[in-house]
Amino acid sequence: MAKAKRVYVLGGYQTDFARNWSKEGKNIQAMLYEAMDGAFAATGIDPEEVETIHVGNFAAELYAMQGHLGAMAVNYSEKLRSLPTSRHEAACASGAIATLVARTEIEAGHYDLAMVIGIEIMKTVDSKTGGDFLGTAAWYEKEAKGVQFPFPKLFGRLGSVYQELYGLKYEHLAEISTINYENAKKNPLAQTRDWYMSKEHALSQGSYNMEVGGIIRITDCSQVTDGAAVIFLASEDYAKKYAKRHGKKLKKIPYIMGWGHATAPILFDVKTEEAYAAKKEGRYILPHTRKAITDAYKRAGIRGPKDLDLVETHDCFTTSEYAAIEHFGLTPPGEAYRAIEDGDIRIGGKLPFNPSGGLIGAGHPVGATGTRQILDVFRQVTGTAGEYQVEGAKIGATLNIGGSATTNVVHIVGVERD
Amino acid sequence: MAKAKRVYVLGGYQTDFARNWSKEGKNIQAMLYEAMDGAFAATGIDPEEVETIHVGNFAAELYAMQGHLGAMAVNYSEKLRSLPTSRHEAACASGAIATLVARTEIEAGHYDLAMVIGIEIMKTVDSKTGGDFLGTAAWYEKEAKGVQFPFPKLFGRLGSVYQELYGLKYEHLAEISTINYENAKKNPLAQTRDWYMSKEHALSQGSYNMEVGGIIRITDCSQVTDGAAVIFLASEDYAKKYAKRHGKKLKKIPYIMGWGHATAPILFDVKTEEAYAAKKEGRYILPHTRKAITDAYKRAGIRGPKDLDLVETHDCFTTSEYAAIEHFGLTPPGEAYRAIEDGDIRIGGKLPFNPSGGLIGAGHPVGATGTRQILDVFRQVTGTAGEYQVEGAKIGATLNIGGSATTNVVHIVGVERD
Repeated sequence: MAKAKRVYVLGGYQTDFARNWSKEGKNIQAMLYEAMDGAFAATGIDPEEVETIHVGNFAAELYAMQGHLGAMAVNYSEKLRSLPTSRHEAACASGAIATLVARTEIEAGHYDLAMVIGIEIMKTVDSKTGGDFLGTAAWYEKEAKGVQFPFPKLFGRLGSVYQELYGLKYEHLAEISTINYENAKKNPLAQTRDWYMSKEHALSQGSYNMEVGGIIRITDCSQVTDGAAVIFLASEDYAKKYAKRHGKKLKKIPYIMGWGHATAPILFDVKTEEAYAAKKEGRYILPHTRKAITDAYKRAGIRGPKDLDLVETHDCFTTSEYAAIEHFGLTPPGEAYRAIEDGDIRIGGKLPFNPSGGLIGAGHPVGATGTRQILDVFRQVTGTAGEYQVEGAKIGATLNIGGSATTNVVHIVGVERD
Repeated sequence: MAKAKRVYVLGGYQTDFARNWSKEGKNIQAMLYEAMDGAFAATGIDPEEVETIHVGNFAAELYAMQGHLGAMAVNYSEKLRSLPTSRHEAACASGAIATLVARTEIEAGHYDLAMVIGIEIMKTVDSKTGGDFLGTAAWYEKEAKGVQFPFPKLFGRLGSVYQELYGLKYEHLAEISTINYENAKKNPLAQTRDWYMSKEHALSQGSYNMEVGGIIRITDCSQVTDGAAVIFLASEDYAKKYAKRHGKKLKKIPYIMGWGHATAPILFDVKTEEAYAAKKEGRYILPHTRKAITDAYKRAGIRGPKDLDLVETHDCFTTSEYAAIEHFGLTPPGEAYRAIEDGDIRIGGKLPFNPSGGLIGAGHPVGATGTRQILDVFRQVTGTAGEYQVEGAKIGATLNIGGSATTNVVHIVGVERD
């Protein structure tokens, strides 16, 4: 792997994921400009300094009848006029893809400061229509057309695979859900921070907690969320200036230590075949998710989960977090339940997963999730995560997934350990 | 500007733009796989060699209810499994954006061989619905909602600006249209190659050639097109191997000499203000289009149009080609008509524009146009453009535009002059 220039993360801004922008009478443009406002204010960066803008967005064409979101950002300020802009998409991994592209441009030496905006407005449509839109992240004609809420069913199938291969028990999924909701209560921007939720509720079944796709019940699902999360990425030259301006040392500024990006076959049938083959060989059952993670470890020059202080993972459903726990290497294949039972993934545990509350607790504005995850790791490794701070965190990882574990993007962000 | 590593263009494949895939009962997946088939066959590259896949697409979510097209490409062959994939969008400039990202990844040293796929299926809907979908490339709520065919009107306004500032005459637009249709007759993949079209028709007005937006008549419009265009980009290491395998010299393989990428304010009202201000100062009236072009010249280390042998430009309407002629520097501001009258833009002229027939003659499958343009320059500078060959061409430029001249992306591709 090529030795690349270091790219720094300077922080950013996240909108309150509990907001319903349509009810406020605000559209995606309003969200975009509020998020940009917040990001400039939070970092003290002037729009004039930005050299390139990348937008991660899944499907504003469907939810908001608006494409060309990169260009839309230029309207924020005359100072942004003429900048290169673009929008990037890989379903629910769109935010991470935008981050990958921005980082690469800086590595290639073209720009020193990139603004990366993850954004999605979803409450513009009813849940059935929204479920159908999300179906375009799968192979729509084969896996989603005419299926009500295709994604709980697809990730329910991931649960079935775990049940068949490893005897997955529902109580472990309920614990994942419970922890995410608990963590979210400490996150002032989490969608569910004021919701009533408990382990008893998660364990219940039937009218209070309907099954929506195989083993997946309502409490196993991430939320439908309106929101945006902005991060700034910078070259070493810019980061040095920025550190000086803020009276910080460069080594206290987080940087992208490593990343991985791998795509699985889009059809879940093929993923299932791969899972059975992997099990036979004692490998992790989602080989491409595993590859994205191990590539990121290699690039970061770290050994594995023992060198991480936290993970912000893509718990679109509890089954995807269940898979992530072991695929990050915290346990051998099929043994994620041990880490759950031992409390390893709780804040204060061996390797906290989703201290922010994740997609289940914090919310899942599809195109914003990838940048929100990186922003949360930034908060953790700079000791600014408030109530959900993982004590002493220096290095964190993100896993952002598009489709049914189809696109897998991992980032490892950290500061130098003293 | 950073001195970047050289990135080579190895050719690719274009589908026949005259085809109507819906009438053939084929969907976007079929188009994707046919285009990939063609590209592997045309270049002799094996799928196993590809290291990254980028898709340029405007709005498959709307036209084909399918997102996540990057991932869709992986299904083409087991050999592509696990590759990094993504889709990029900037309205009608999506193909060029995908190309920019792929090039940057190679420059940064991450990959040696990238497959870039521009694709759009558009004949899945009636023309009114399609016109509405295209409205999402503008600021939909302000410029397109409830407007029938918003884009001819927006580019009609560009014509009005030229009329007011420089006394544009319709006959010059008719000549642009005529040349594009004429050139297209020589292009075996052009959508209009068998259409009846003449200068008389272009000059006519009324029921045979309706005005659809100010000065814009039917003959001034590009086509609604189904199509894909694939190109391969490679590092010098890979290009050397490739040249050797094909018994060619590396210096005969085209490379990306320069590029430019600039975004104008999305609203045409603001562009109009800028145009008036620019006119006063004797500058070109689309300053961001001009910037993309001059940035590309700088990066390519060339002086301007005198060092180019051809241009493939974004003639979504004749007015955008009219602007491009002068913005490339072929004439001073407001004098594009001189180049048209002098025959400069014809094949055989001083600087042929759109020998392929462009978007008007060859067709405009939105997300594929940017890659099709680069593929056409590749054909020209390798002397393989057949009937529409510009004799002795060594260096060509492309201009791919998103929205109403909002996103502007320029590529300069060439081989070394002996």
